[in-house]
Order: sequence, then C-alpha cells, then structure tokens
Amino acid sequence: MLRSAIRQFLTQTRFLVTDTAQTVHQKNSNILYGKPIARRILNECHNECAEFVNKYQCRPRLVTVLVGGNESSKLYVRNKQRIAEHVGIDFQVINQLMHTTPSQLIDTIQSLNQDHSVDGIILQLPLPLHLIDKTQQFIDIIREDKDVDAHTSPNGYLYRQSPPPLVTIPVVAAVREMLLEIGEPLQGKDVVVIGRSKYVGTPLALMLSQSSTTAKDSLVSGATVTICHRHTHLNNLTWYCKNADVIVSAVGRPKLITQRMVKKDAIVIDVGISKSWTDKAVAQNKQFVGDVDFHDVQRVARWITPVPGGIGPVTIACLISNLLRLARHRRQ
Amino acid sequence: MLRSAIRQFLTQTRFLVTDTAQTVHQKNSNILYGKPIARRILNECHNECAEFVNKYQCRPRLVTVLVGGNESSKLYVRNKQRIAEHVGIDFQVINQLMHTTPSQLIDTIQSLNQDHSVDGIILQLPLPLHLIDKTQQFIDIIREDKDVDAHTSPNGYLYRQSPPPLVTIPVVAAVREMLLEIGEPLQGKDVVVIGRSKYVGTPLALMLSQSSTTAKDSLVSGATVTICHRHTHLNNLTWYCKNADVIVSAVGRPKLITQRMVKKDAIVIDVGISKSWTDKAVAQNKQFVGDVDFHDVQRVARWITPVPGGIGPVTIACLISNLLRLARHRRQ
Repeated sequence: MLRSAIRQFLTQTRFLVTDTAQTVHQKNSNILYGKPIARRILNECHNECAEFVNKYQCRPRLVTVLVGGNESSKLYVRNKQRIAEHVGIDFQVINQLMHTTPSQLIDTIQSLNQDHSVDGIILQLPLPLHLIDKTQQFIDIIREDKDVDAHTSPNGYLYRQSPPPLVTIPVVAAVREMLLEIGEPLQGKDVVVIGRSKYVGTPLALMLSQSSTTAKDSLVSGATVTICHRHTHLNNLTWYCKNADVIVSAVGRPKLITQRMVKKDAIVIDVGISKSWTDKAVAQNKQFVGDVDFHDVQRVARWITPVPGGIGPVTIACLISNLLRLARHRRQ
Repeated sequence: MLRSAIRQFLTQTRFLVTDTAQTVHQKNSNILYGKPIARRILNECHNECAEFVNKYQCRPRLVTVLVGGNESSKLYVRNKQRIAEHVGIDFQVINQLMHTTPSQLIDTIQSLNQDHSVDGIILQLPLPLHLIDKTQQFIDIIREDKDVDAHTSPNGYLYRQSPPPLVTIPVVAAVREMLLEIGEPLQGKDVVVIGRSKYVGTPLALMLSQSSTTAKDSLVSGATVTICHRHTHLNNLTWYCKNADVIVSAVGRPKLITQRMVKKDAIVIDVGISKSWTDKAVAQNKQFVGDVDFHDVQRVARWITPVPGGIGPVTIACLISNLLRLARHRRQ
C-alpha cells in the first residue's frame, strides 16, 4: 500500500518528477535541480519507512506545532505534510492560537516529549512576536532525540560533539547533498557563505570549514570559508565573491548576487528565499525568488541551483530522513 | 592575608608587573602586552575571591587532572597553580600515571564532579596517545558548572545557546579582552582567523563574526571573518591576510605571518605558541615563539601582541575568572 502511495506521490506532486531519464542536471545545462536529489532521498526514506512499519507495526509519527496563522508558515507546513504522508509518515499539525502563552506552548511541547508514539517534533518558526525572543528556549524543551530540525542546542554542537549528533539541520544537510552531487573536492577551495544565522549561515560555514576525515567529507568540508553578512560592505562582498570557487547565499535578499560578483566557473548555491511582489512576478506566478540573479549568474557559473526547485525540495527530504533516523534510533 | 599575598604575588611573579606607571601599551609602542590586562583581571579576581572566602568560609577550589608526564603540560599546570594560589584559590593537581585506563580517568572525573568542595575541574590536554581519541568524551563527563575551560559540549554552544553559557573558553575570552583594550569597533571590518581547532580557532571565528547587540560587543564581533587553516594555500593566506584589518593566528607555526602578509596599520593578535630549538633561541632563552615574525611585523602593524607575554597571561587570568564565576554560581 505504501509503495503504491509513494508511486502515486511521485507521479502527482509538483516536487518530484517521474521521468526516470531526467538526471540531476539536465544535459548541456549548468542548473542543479533539487527535485531529483530529493526523489532519491525520499525513495530511500520510503523503503526505510516500509521496514519501520513492518518492524514496529506503526508508522513513524511527526508532529508540527504551528502557533498563529502566518500564511508562509502554513504553506511550508502543508508542503511538509504532503510529502511526509506520501512517504508513509503519520503527520499531525497542532494549531495553537496566535495569543498562546509561553506556558501553554511549553505544556504542548512537553506532552509531545512524553508521548511515546511521537517520533519527531517540529516547532514551526517564526513564532509570533510576543514569543519570538524566547524561541531558542522553547526549542530547547524539545527532546534531543525527537528534534528533527536539529535546532536544539545539543544538536547544534556540530563542530564539537563526539560522536556527532544523529541529525543535521535539514537545510545544511541539503547543501551537503548538493555538493556531494557535484562531487568536486572543496578542500583548499575558497568558499563564501553569505548569512550568519544560527540555523543556516553559521552551521553551514562550520560544516564547510571543518577538517575532513573521509574522501566523501572532503567534498563538503576543508574549504577556506569567509562568513559575510549584513555588516559586510557591498564592495567587500563583491571582492570576496569574485574570488570564491563556491558561493552559498542564505540571506533572503532578491538579486543580491549578480553576474559581476561571480567568478567564471564558480558553483553558486542559493539557499535564500523571498517573496517578490512586482507586477511581473505576480503576473508570471514567479513570486518566490532566491538571493541570486539567476538568469545572469547562470551565464558564468559552472553549477547553479534554482529557486524554487533547488535547495527547497532537498531540505524537506532531509527533514524526513532525519525523522526516520531518530525514530529508528529511539525505538531500538 | 589574601591581600598581602596578592601584593607579594604582583611583585614577585614574572607574569605580572608592579610598575603602576606601565600602561597596557607602552608609550610610542605598538606592542600590546598581556601582563597589565591580566593584572587588572586578577586584581578583580582577588577581590572576588576575598568576598567568596568571607561569605562561604572556604577558598574556591580548582583541581587539575594531569595524565602522564608531558613536560609542557607540567609547565602550564605549574604556571596556573602559581597564579591561582596567589589570587587565593585552593589549587590541587591530581597526577595520574601515563598508562591510566579510560575507566580510571572517568572515575577520577566523576568523583570530582560529586565532591561538593570542588568548584572547577581542568582536564589538562593533550592526553596520552592511548586516550587522545576519546578526549571530548572524557571532557564531556565534567559537570558543566565545574567546567572552567569551557571545553564541554554544553559550554560550546556559543553561537546558539540562550542565555549564553556562564563561561567562555579562556583563550577566546583573552582575545576578547585584548580587542576591548584596543577599543576599535570590529563591525564590518575584515578579520582573518588562522586555525580552525575546536577549542581555539573555530570558537574565535564564531565570536568575531556574530551579530553584536551592545556597543561593547561591537568591539569584538560583527566582522567579516575568513577561517584559514592547513588546507589554505600560502598564496591565498597571503591574499586574505593582506586585506585584513585584524589577523588572529592560532596554529603554532613559527614565523607563519611575515611582514609582507600584513596590511599597514592592521591589528595582529598572536595566539600561537611553539618551542624553537634553534641554537640562537636556546642561547638567548627565547624558546617560546608565536606564529608571527614579531620584529618584522611590528614595523607595519598598528597593534601587535608579543609571545610570550601577550595572550598567555590573559588566558590564565580568564581561567581564574571563570572559576570564580562558576564557584559563585554553583553555591548561590
């Protein structure tokens, strides 16, 4: 039943494509699409999920706590739900009212922590304004072994913990998958990470700069990494980018990275996403845009990821993969 | 009694100078000495220690576990002991034999964890070869609230935890003190950190790149940071350094940073330390050297820290400061 469900999913959803002839990068194209990579990960997840159901006679269960009615958050949650359910995961959304108090939110998370049937908990961000300052404190209530987003502090050691945490922040794992797909060693290369947020930019910079112990690791780490951010002057940003072999942008500013900032044959990974409200964007239904001026930069880059259809689908696939890893580990 | 002890200490030890006219940087000199900064911190520690003794009728107690007979480690421990005791701290060294087993070491740490009279535990690194692979696992046994070195994983969140950990890795805190002393905002400046070790280079890069919420923070964070390391080609290292407003080197390679790599009026902070065995060094008793070709770089830098006498004494002072903070916090 699950197998037919995933097949149906693969044919129906707009995230995954069915044409088996389509490779990750289309012939004669330098565009690195996320969908085929996501499909590969989700296929593995589907198999693991079926094994899980066989073994434990229940489906892995993922619960998302959504506070308030932010439209973008709702959209993200619906996307995750659609994909999770097609893989065979029991996905539940707990809607909490906009004016939820801190203690109510804490109670909700704690009851999910204690519920043995729950394998993963997502606290959908951003929280409403009256809770936003305590975001990390709410996140840190989530049990480390149910933390599919890898947002809790213990899962954030990254550069220190030994052995490393079971799960990686999905978007960081997605960048890793993209770089593995490209398959060029990063060791000694110059990488610019734009953005220093604690769940995206900073952990990305850490991953990319750390020492690599295996050949596979050397495809995603060992680089000389520069962390740029809002206080980096545009001239300096250009100077760093123009020298970079790889640019990873994660700030959410449309057309921040233009063609003149990119070295020929560089790899450009666009993690940013923002909504454009120009008449043209609305008319063409192309409202979601990345940080990179895609069409111009595409002319000089060796590899470039699109937005949408790049990092996004891979990120959701990595989230599902985290859930299965945690669920298996907790029930062992 | 304590006050006279510290006065005696200030006059006797080679770490601290007594000449009150000597400022942090001597007139007409661009050398940023660590001793006066360390003296200021230790004076504060001395006062806090006296208050502590008054309040709790016992001295704060710091225990160092030293495994094997590494000569450099013994020297470091003796230095810490001399300074700690002069501040009024009860300093104890537990010597464990070179062939200590993992379980013996774990037992030692656990008994110190349980001993209420122990306020701080140092596991002196490096461990002998047969234990070195499990270093982080041994460190993580240390109770977070006795971890004066801030080496345990929970104290390593740094960029994520909210509220931040009570203590900062002493050498990172020492670089912070040096930059505060210089007093120039780093926000938007270009900084190169050389070295990506998990207790020095990486946390330094994190501190320097993070967003700053206060005016004081902006003196030590908000910079565009490049992390260079052993896989950064020398040409690239030169390129990054030559552009940097601040260079922090923490690798332990003598004369890695030469005059031609440093921009005029840059700030150069030398965290590296290695032992030189050249005849000249031995004859002149100048065996300990930093990463920076001091005499040449001094000609172009606006501020430069010497080795020895730079970061070293401030690091020990910050360690003592950590102990007092943890001791007060635990007993409150």
